[in-house]
Amino acid sequence: MLSAVALAGRGRGRTAPNPNVGCVIVRDGRVIGRGWTGAGGRPHAEAIAIEAAGDVAGATLYVTLEPCAHVSARGPACADLIVAAKPARVAIALRDPDPRTDGRGIARIEAAGIAVATGVEAAAARASMAGFLTRRSKGRPHVTLKLATSLDGRIALPDGSSRWITGPAARAHAHLERARHEMILVGRGTLEADSPTLDVRLPGLEGRSPRRAVLGHGAAPEGWTALRDPTAIAGLDGVDHLFVEGGAGTAAAFLAADLVDRLLLYTAPIVVGAGRSAIGDIGLADLAAAHDRWRLADTRTLGIDRLSIYERI
Amino acid sequence: MLSAVALAGRGRGRTAPNPNVGCVIVRDGRVIGRGWTGAGGRPHAEAIAIEAAGDVAGATLYVTLEPCAHVSARGPACADLIVAAKPARVAIALRDPDPRTDGRGIARIEAAGIAVATGVEAAAARASMAGFLTRRSKGRPHVTLKLATSLDGRIALPDGSSRWITGPAARAHAHLERARHEMILVGRGTLEADSPTLDVRLPGLEGRSPRRAVLGHGAAPEGWTALRDPTAIAGLDGVDHLFVEGGAGTAAAFLAADLVDRLLLYTAPIVVGAGRSAIGDIGLADLAAAHDRWRLADTRTLGIDRLSIYERI
Ligand SMILES: NC(=O)c1ccc[n+]([C@@H]2O[C@H](COP(=O)([O-])OP(=O)(O)OC[C@H]3O[C@@H](n4cnc5c(N)ncnc54)[C@H](OP(=O)(O)O)[C@@H]3O)[C@@H](O)[C@H]2O)c1
Ligand SMILES: NC(=O)c1ccc[n+]([C@@H]2O[C@H](COP(=O)([O-])OP(=O)(O)OC[C@H]3O[C@@H](n4cnc5c(N)ncnc54)[C@H](OP(=O)(O)O)[C@@H]3O)[C@@H](O)[C@H]2O)c1
Repeated sequence: MLSAVALAGRGRGRTAPNPNVGCVIVRDGRVIGRGWTGAGGRPHAEAIAIEAAGDVAGATLYVTLEPCAHVSARGPACADLIVAAKPARVAIALRDPDPRTDGRGIARIEAAGIAVATGVEAAAARASMAGFLTRRSKGRPHVTLKLATSLDGRIALPDGSSRWITGPAARAHAHLERARHEMILVGRGTLEADSPTLDVRLPGLEGRSPRRAVLGHGAAPEGWTALRDPTAIAGLDGVDHLFVEGGAGTAAAFLAADLVDRLLLYTAPIVVGAGRSAIGDIGLADLAAAHDRWRLADTRTLGIDRLSIYERI
Repeated sequence: MLSAVALAGRGRGRTAPNPNVGCVIVRDGRVIGRGWTGAGGRPHAEAIAIEAAGDVAGATLYVTLEPCAHVSARGPACADLIVAAKPARVAIALRDPDPRTDGRGIARIEAAGIAVATGVEAAAARASMAGFLTRRSKGRPHVTLKLATSLDGRIALPDGSSRWITGPAARAHAHLERARHEMILVGRGTLEADSPTLDVRLPGLEGRSPRRAVLGHGAAPEGWTALRDPTAIAGLDGVDHLFVEGGAGTAAAFLAADLVDRLLLYTAPIVVGAGRSAIGDIGLADLAAAHDRWRLADTRTLGIDRLSIYERI
């Protein structure tokens, strides 16, 4: 199932408003089919994996989300495909919250005499589909806030110069993260100061640059989306993963509105002293209120920098 | 040898101006004697370990620093003790830079027909004796700067309130670190704002509270040492390890003077936003100059907080 979760990650940032699903089919200890949701949400992961495997009889099919029970103009229901392919067993990580499926996919497969196990590696699958699930449960995209700071929390010198805080490995990682989001957002201050292109500058991923948005009250450049307020992210069509890249005012606005689900903290091994801070006023009245909101999900070394990923509790 | 290095750590902060040394004696795979330098520098680690072992014939003696070759009013030369005890082998991590020994201890032991290996786990031994070695090479104590910040580098809210950023496990660790230094220093601003006691509040270690110092131009409280300038640390008698606990002005003064050897960074999983920063102006002219000065030596979890230890390259 963890292989299926890893495959699910490949569709991340390209399937909204559909979930990014992963599927692996195994027989006699050998992988005979793999699939993940295509760009735009079709084909579905199960259809690709079954097609790749050809004959699925007697095999075990692992899928990160309950197979859909609804026929669409773009393809048949995956539950029907599976029933027809006759695997011996189906392992499902998460039940589909979509009311058109929600339990019906499982029921249809079980009714055909195929054994079904649910809840398999559910936590990992939930993390891999954070965008789809956040959209379902909160009616807005999953929001990641990226910060790249010195050891003392600075993002620039007092004069604004910020080249470079972090090194090439951390910057490449941030570009990879961009490709995993449907949209990147910066504040009007950053747009005017830096005219950032916000594209994915990694070999082979140039075509994966997300849509761009700016927070503020001025006009947006050609091709950019303008957001007047952080809460306006709920109305963004086809955006289940939003990547917020600053500046300090924008980071503070999203944090103050409690609209950040994940913090991506790149920390360079340098001390800056006087300088600009990563986050502006979030209206914190006392320190106790700051606690019990974030937990460390992962930390690793990127070149000489550290990456720490915190998730909202 | 790594056991001997660990034992050496027990004397840290109590042996200045003498080195804190560790010694382990092994025969047939069993430890038969252990010792570390006593408070004030005597007895020496080798004398304690040989006394504990009783009969050392045929054994291997591991010691983190070359045994001394000079007789003192406080005890015989360890090289002579070892020659008399007749171990089969002696393993030494570091040569003693003290001109009264520097190679003579090794020569005397070898002359007695005992096999000597040097340079064994030298890097670990060097780290355990950082105070003694910094005093020898730079004529000043080894300086650790402690910072306890939020994820965004804040040490307090704009009104100065800082209870609490980090949790009990991180605070207990910081108290343990205090006990490993001969002196703790804060700036006059912190002294006046917080009247800190700077003692070691850990069960069993209450007697290990270091001497206290304040940086600034006013008078020092009864029992405290006043330092007019960071460079004045060179003249501190019996201080080979200095622990600097802030505030921001003092941290900046030591960093600007390049007098910090080790950064102890406690990071709480909270976001503060507007607030006070850990480090004031260090006079950094451009970001490139901030690089290649610090490397991550260790990082670990303390309760819900992270500890990261950086060392000056
Ligand atoms: N080193 C780095 O990693 C990094 C990353 C990003 C940015 N930066 C730097 O950060 C600086 C800009 O930071 P900044 O804080 O001044 O600007 P910013 O966050 O990029 O933009 C601030 C603008 O965002 C809009 N905004 C903020 N909160 C809002 C809210 N609640 N509702 C609606 N709009 C809101 C406002 O636009 P309106 O005025 O139009 O209302 C505000 O002026 C630049 O110098 C840039 O180089 C550095
Ligand atoms: N949360 C935490 O972890 C933490 C830790 C420590 C402190 N704090 C807070 O930090 C605040 C104090 O910070 P601060 O930056 O104002 O004060 P500070 O660093 O404690 O003290 C500043 C004073 O240090 C002296 N000083 C600084 N640089 C010097 C130099 N190069 N040579 C000689 N003397 C020098 C000056 O004293 P003179 O004016 O006498 O010359 C200066 O006024 C307090 O509110 C305290 O609560 C928080």
